[in-house]
Amino acid sequence: MAAARRMVVVGGDAAGMTAASQARRLQGPDELKIIAFERGDYSSYSACGIPYWVAGDVGQRDDLIARTPEQHRERDIDVRMRTEVTAIDPDRGRVRARELPRDAPPGPEFWTEFDDLVLATGARPVLPPLPGIDAEGVHGVQSLEDGQALLERLDALQGPDRKGSGNGGDRLRAVVVGAGYIGVEMAEALVRRDFEVTVLEGAPQPMTTLDPDMGELVRDAMCDMGMEVVTGTPATAVETDDSGRACAVTTGETSYPADVVVLGLGVAPETSLAREAGLPLGESGGLLTDLAMRVRGSENIWSGGDCVEVLDLISGRTRHVALGTHANKHGQVIGANIAGGYATFPGVVGTAVSKVCDLEIARTGLLEGQAREVGLQFVTVTAEATSRAGYFPGSRPMRVKMLAERGTGRLLGTQIVGREGAGKRVDIAAVALTAGMTVGQMTYLDLGYAPPFSPVWDPVLVAARKATAAVSG
Amino acid sequence: MAAARRMVVVGGDAAGMTAASQARRLQGPDELKIIAFERGDYSSYSACGIPYWVAGDVGQRDDLIARTPEQHRERDIDVRMRTEVTAIDPDRGRVRARELPRDAPPGPEFWTEFDDLVLATGARPVLPPLPGIDAEGVHGVQSLEDGQALLERLDALQGPDRKGSGNGGDRLRAVVVGAGYIGVEMAEALVRRDFEVTVLEGAPQPMTTLDPDMGELVRDAMCDMGMEVVTGTPATAVETDDSGRACAVTTGETSYPADVVVLGLGVAPETSLAREAGLPLGESGGLLTDLAMRVRGSENIWSGGDCVEVLDLISGRTRHVALGTHANKHGQVIGANIAGGYATFPGVVGTAVSKVCDLEIARTGLLEGQAREVGLQFVTVTAEATSRAGYFPGSRPMRVKMLAERGTGRLLGTQIVGREGAGKRVDIAAVALTAGMTVGQMTYLDLGYAPPFSPVWDPVLVAARKATAAVSG
Repeated sequence: MAAARRMVVVGGDAAGMTAASQARRLQGPDELKIIAFERGDYSSYSACGIPYWVAGDVGQRDDLIARTPEQHRERDIDVRMRTEVTAIDPDRGRVRARELPRDAPPGPEFWTEFDDLVLATGARPVLPPLPGIDAEGVHGVQSLEDGQALLERLDALQGPDRKGSGNGGDRLRAVVVGAGYIGVEMAEALVRRDFEVTVLEGAPQPMTTLDPDMGELVRDAMCDMGMEVVTGTPATAVETDDSGRACAVTTGETSYPADVVVLGLGVAPETSLAREAGLPLGESGGLLTDLAMRVRGSENIWSGGDCVEVLDLISGRTRHVALGTHANKHGQVIGANIAGGYATFPGVVGTAVSKVCDLEIARTGLLEGQAREVGLQFVTVTAEATSRAGYFPGSRPMRVKMLAERGTGRLLGTQIVGREGAGKRVDIAAVALTAGMTVGQMTYLDLGYAPPFSPVWDPVLVAARKATAAVSG
Repeated sequence: MAAARRMVVVGGDAAGMTAASQARRLQGPDELKIIAFERGDYSSYSACGIPYWVAGDVGQRDDLIARTPEQHRERDIDVRMRTEVTAIDPDRGRVRARELPRDAPPGPEFWTEFDDLVLATGARPVLPPLPGIDAEGVHGVQSLEDGQALLERLDALQGPDRKGSGNGGDRLRAVVVGAGYIGVEMAEALVRRDFEVTVLEGAPQPMTTLDPDMGELVRDAMCDMGMEVVTGTPATAVETDDSGRACAVTTGETSYPADVVVLGLGVAPETSLAREAGLPLGESGGLLTDLAMRVRGSENIWSGGDCVEVLDLISGRTRHVALGTHANKHGQVIGANIAGGYATFPGVVGTAVSKVCDLEIARTGLLEGQAREVGLQFVTVTAEATSRAGYFPGSRPMRVKMLAERGTGRLLGTQIVGREGAGKRVDIAAVALTAGMTVGQMTYLDLGYAPPFSPVWDPVLVAARKATAAVSG
């Protein structure tokens, strides 16, 4: 009998462990040996759930863990926790690794051979080199360890009943640096924990994943929720008190006092290993793969999740999109391919959805700036509509912005900001984008209609109708 | 100056008045004179809102009226209320009509000429010829007048505080005949008004717009809501008391006592005028049109809304689908075409959504029986998934059933039964169906993901993934 092939996975979260699970589903341990290295303490966890854990929506850390190392091991996946891969040797088909025991120096380095390698090293938080950024009291929210540390800090400040005033009786203050997805989600978590929240954003608007006019809607709503939103003024330093703990964030001119500082500046692909091994990286630093998720130029190295760039089906360019839903799909594709099947990940259209308290924020396709950048000529329209029939209780307003190519009428992008029922409507546009529909075709889409679910013209169709008129006008 | 052309509309609800409004938007009264005849008391109202008015979600009748006759007249649309069209003379381009004054015999008949005629006569409730079906206490819910009469009856039974017991102290009982959309919506309304509700359905399951296995989920949920659901036993008679008022519905063997009887047996196209004028009708009795909504074989007669059959894009056949959302789109198309533009209604994929209390029910495309009827070979899968990330509060289960063509993998239909967040997910499948996507293509759709909105694999994608495996397996 032939020896089992060896699949080595670097990174034990969504992409890596989905690849491992999918490969195992298709091939047993006699055919395929699977070893997964994870340098942290957790496997297969939901980083996107951390803001809701901090907010109290999610009761405990373990709720965010889809599958523990033990559960993976029961399925014959050899997960090595607290084990860091320190080098990749593509030519000889091996990786170098070492254990990271708790409260002890790293163990000796050793080499492990692979027939197929999966790089699923994820992303790291963007950390500008500001004075004080490493101070105690400055928290990222990328890993479960980060979330745990932040929760402990908040609980220490607030006490068990999560009061909004500290031990001295003053209102507790939080500064969130960055107003992208993570920033606004953390702002929500902290407001709901009764902190006085200031959000600092270097760009002129919150949510630069939206066009400025739509981002302004988010700003207005955040202010109505009692947050202070400071834009156009990047943070320049974290100030510390005598004990070395963060006590304020300054933008140069103004200092914003903080009992806790949360960093939400987005993430960048974690590809230092790949870079050192000479693997091809895109502009964002993400690994470049083919549609089978095989690293370009490699035979047997695969990559997926937050460390890759993916094809944007609308712009035709590759881009970095860190989202658990993509990571899972990448893993599925990689696992199938390694186990002798054939699968491809066709690319993304740039869909994202988030919320700040009851404000839902969604987008898909290109923003105005992105469409201009790739040289497209387009029209834009915005439409106001409601989530349900206007007369139905709970009907809430939303604004839908739509971009369509001038001349052809092809849908290029959609942004939605509204209340309950707004966010997931972006899926309609996401599927239409994938299918290459025109806004004229979209106008007559047969969508679910009943008064508790939609007006007779769904908000997305109202925008499509307006865009159709603008394209032909 | 040439005389203005004359557009005559028969039926003052969604399709007719949308056609009038759209034509008026494009052409002024010097170019186009618009006369609309409506035999009832209301224009442009939402019949689909009636169950929610009865339930108390909608406060008053006028909330269901999108535009009053006066508002139409202000826009130079000559609306003639309580005026019945009694004949169409296509050859001479005229219709015969008469006024129906309140509390007086009909007025004399008169002829009105048209250059373009819009038949928007809507649908009439299906009324089986049962003994007693015309008795007092038996209520339809097709028109606002019907809704008003039912509300008055319920209020008389319950008193101002809407108690669930009658004047004699007994629990009030309602029998709903028919368990389709209207039936289940009325069952909800009556349960929420504290009636003891029995639903009688001749078919073996409630919601025959779903496959039997999915319909059973609806039955289970309705029973859990305290309704009695009797299927497979059609009502055979309405029993009346000494005063001639309905007091029970019998299925032959069993008699179900009723303080009020509500008919929810669906609707059929109201096309008696068109039939007498020799216009072409389909199998359901609905008018047949081209994609511009022009009646087949006619030059200047148009039709839309609940009185037409539309092209089913999946089966390639025409079918009758009575939905306000289609009526509005038809009206838009007709109005544009009459006013010198060009628009088409491409057809439907058979999407519908409804709810019974907190149970959401949705479908699009073909059921198993329909797919067999048109000779398709297909696989079916069902998937269980949740509306949000499993760990997120408010995450609710749903079942998604998917049909895909064997061999090609083309999506043929999707049914969803679940709780909050289930119903409108059918839109994903509706757009994919319209685009002719395969379930393999759907599996990698880039849908909005964040823990409060979706699991990493949206429930529709879970079903698509399963269907992909079934198609290739």
